[in-house]
Amino acid sequence: MPVISLMTDFGLKDGNVGVMKGVIWNIAPEAQISDLSHLIAPQNIREAALILARSAPYFPDFSIHVVVVDPGVGTARRPMAAQIGTQYYVGPDNGTITLLLEQAEKTGQKTRFAHLDKPKYWLPNVSYVFHGRDIFAPVAGHLARGAQLSELGTAFDNPARLSLPQPEKTSLGWRGEVIHIDHFGNVASNIRVENLADALKAPEKVIVRVGGAEIRGLVNTFGERAPGELVALLGSTGNLIVSVVNGSAQARLDAKVGDPFEVSFS
Amino acid sequence: MPVISLMTDFGLKDGNVGVMKGVIWNIAPEAQISDLSHLIAPQNIREAALILARSAPYFPDFSIHVVVVDPGVGTARRPMAAQIGTQYYVGPDNGTITLLLEQAEKTGQKTRFAHLDKPKYWLPNVSYVFHGRDIFAPVAGHLARGAQLSELGTAFDNPARLSLPQPEKTSLGWRGEVIHIDHFGNVASNIRVENLADALKAPEKVIVRVGGAEIRGLVNTFGERAPGELVALLGSTGNLIVSVVNGSAQARLDAKVGDPFEVSFS
Amino acid sequence: MPVISLMTDFGLKDGNVGVMKGVIWNIAPEAQISDLSHLIAPQNIREAALILARSAPYFPDFSIHVVVVDPGVGTARRPMAAQIGTQYYVGPDNGTITLLLEQAEKTGQKTRFAHLDKPKYWLPNVSYVFHGRDIFAPVAGHLARGAQLSELGTAFDNPARLSLPQPEKTSLGWRGEVIHIDHFGNVASNIRVENLADALKAPEKVIVRVGGAEIRGLVNTFGERAPGELVALLGSTGNLIVSVVNGSAQARLDAKVGDPFEVSFS
Repeated sequence: MPVISLMTDFGLKDGNVGVMKGVIWNIAPEAQISDLSHLIAPQNIREAALILARSAPYFPDFSIHVVVVDPGVGTARRPMAAQIGTQYYVGPDNGTITLLLEQAEKTGQKTRFAHLDKPKYWLPNVSYVFHGRDIFAPVAGHLARGAQLSELGTAFDNPARLSLPQPEKTSLGWRGEVIHIDHFGNVASNIRVENLADALKAPEKVIVRVGGAEIRGLVNTFGERAPGELVALLGSTGNLIVSVVNGSAQARLDAKVGDPFEVSFS
Repeated sequence: MPVISLMTDFGLKDGNVGVMKGVIWNIAPEAQISDLSHLIAPQNIREAALILARSAPYFPDFSIHVVVVDPGVGTARRPMAAQIGTQYYVGPDNGTITLLLEQAEKTGQKTRFAHLDKPKYWLPNVSYVFHGRDIFAPVAGHLARGAQLSELGTAFDNPARLSLPQPEKTSLGWRGEVIHIDHFGNVASNIRVENLADALKAPEKVIVRVGGAEIRGLVNTFGERAPGELVALLGSTGNLIVSVVNGSAQARLDAKVGDPFEVSFS
Repeated sequence: MPVISLMTDFGLKDGNVGVMKGVIWNIAPEAQISDLSHLIAPQNIREAALILARSAPYFPDFSIHVVVVDPGVGTARRPMAAQIGTQYYVGPDNGTITLLLEQAEKTGQKTRFAHLDKPKYWLPNVSYVFHGRDIFAPVAGHLARGAQLSELGTAFDNPARLSLPQPEKTSLGWRGEVIHIDHFGNVASNIRVENLADALKAPEKVIVRVGGAEIRGLVNTFGERAPGELVALLGSTGNLIVSVVNGSAQARLDAKVGDPFEVSFS
């Protein structure tokens, strides 16, 4: 059974996500469909890219990820489908795939891109403002039914990429920034486990600075400390994060995406 | 595989929607179920009617739409099932189907209505306050399994209808009102593409007035203008809407459902 | 087709629930998955226990309920799977099953508990902080595929239980407390239909006191009274609740979980 995930900035109240499932099941009645998130901040491609890259690898091979965070809907930006390693992407060519693509390239996985320019795989009437329903959902349905990327559109090799903030090496560690704040108020940085190989040999000596707070030592998990305590740890996707045990680090630190986030060790 | 959609005003935190799926799968284990919306404003039948009418046509033939926005639960209002063209409805007889029914009648599609009065198709114990779980979910399951409308209840022919605001012709165009505001803050009116046939020959001459703002000209899509600009356009379901590019027209105009919305052209 | 329900405090914006479905479908591609709730208040095991107990009985036999409300993730608390009557539970051994277990024990149903200590049924890499993805989702997938509880882990017989507030008999009735407030603002107490056998013979003589208000008489359903009126009634799961017809009792009474809730009758 083919698996499709959906991620949008459509919210949950207007029925637009449900309609996309109706369109998909019209073409691929047996598809399993998982909602990844529909609460991406409006037009926030960067947030969608982050969630896609950390989620897609957990899906079955040949899952199809439809992501519609699309400030350019109806303009010249290409609609696209892509194979990125063992996963498929369907959505606008606006950089949403950047991080997933980088992961695949690092490990030498196959990547292919198609400009969706074959209207026979779309709904008969395409609106200017809802390509999720009119183009991307039906294309995902056809992919799920076994259509080849080469049938769906013309191949190309220069997909749009986001320029994402990278952490910088400092004399004592790394200077990064806050890139995501989750439902619990955990504050995640772009400093990753790969940056911290040396530091992790002596995690008690690590110092994290964010939002005016200074946290000494890394823990493995929340339960090691008392409720209300501010802790630093590696999140489940390998990013360095700051949390309040059973509370919200966002509220405690008044943190927001883009804030400086530094780690030092010696 | 039968397809069922669910729309309610139950919200997402109390488990009530999940329970309805459990009840359905007990009867129709293979049903595909799409959540259309569970964030309908409490008891807002009009909002449910609008979303149902614009969503159902995109579903496979013989999909079953369960809508439970039901201020009269447990009182004398009829529980009903209906065939409306190629789609089925299950829910209270309170006008939720008004717009879907009008569409079907305009195009001469078949309509049939059954008063759900056969308890053998319900759960054994029916509460006074949760017919979604106790009556409508099991009936949807039986429909999905192939039960006929005539088995589920006694036929009738006078379903309740809402009295919905219609736009009025003025000397220079149409006077309508705001009927929906979506997740992005797009402000939709009841003035439709059918009303604007003449205007669309010279879209640059159209003037839209809502919330104290005056917008000259229609665009096709958001991306034609700069972020932050207020624009008027046809939404994906054919209604005239006002948007702020990458922003919220609701916030800009302090708009709410029921506000006057006028269009003029000459 | 096996049915799985998911309940967490993860919220809906970060993709974490969708990832769990990807993991499950990797193992059990045909599983039907119902979201019960992902808006449990963070770390609120009691709320999860309540929703689980009233929801699970409506699911098909041998459904698998994965509940991840887990303040102790990564610490010594046991990961567990359980058979409770005809339903399965997968999640932390932290008391989430308390009420469901009490129901099963009262009616003499079979219960079995397994400590999930067999990593071959987990993802290859287990993070410290996301056991929902790394342990509970794959275990649910294997259960859905037919794995036996005894394969998944070592049997034990002392699952953690919550100490939940019980209503107390008074000279004129019962003194309980508010245990849940739903999406509509209905205020539910822990006083149950079983406590009210005598009272229900003369429901017009019942007096309910909560949040400074006194309500005389019970109704069967909201529609018996005018919009805006405060009413007391039995909710769909047998708990005594207070509601405002087409409004919010929570807002009217400024009620919160833990507030006193009394009923008297004579």
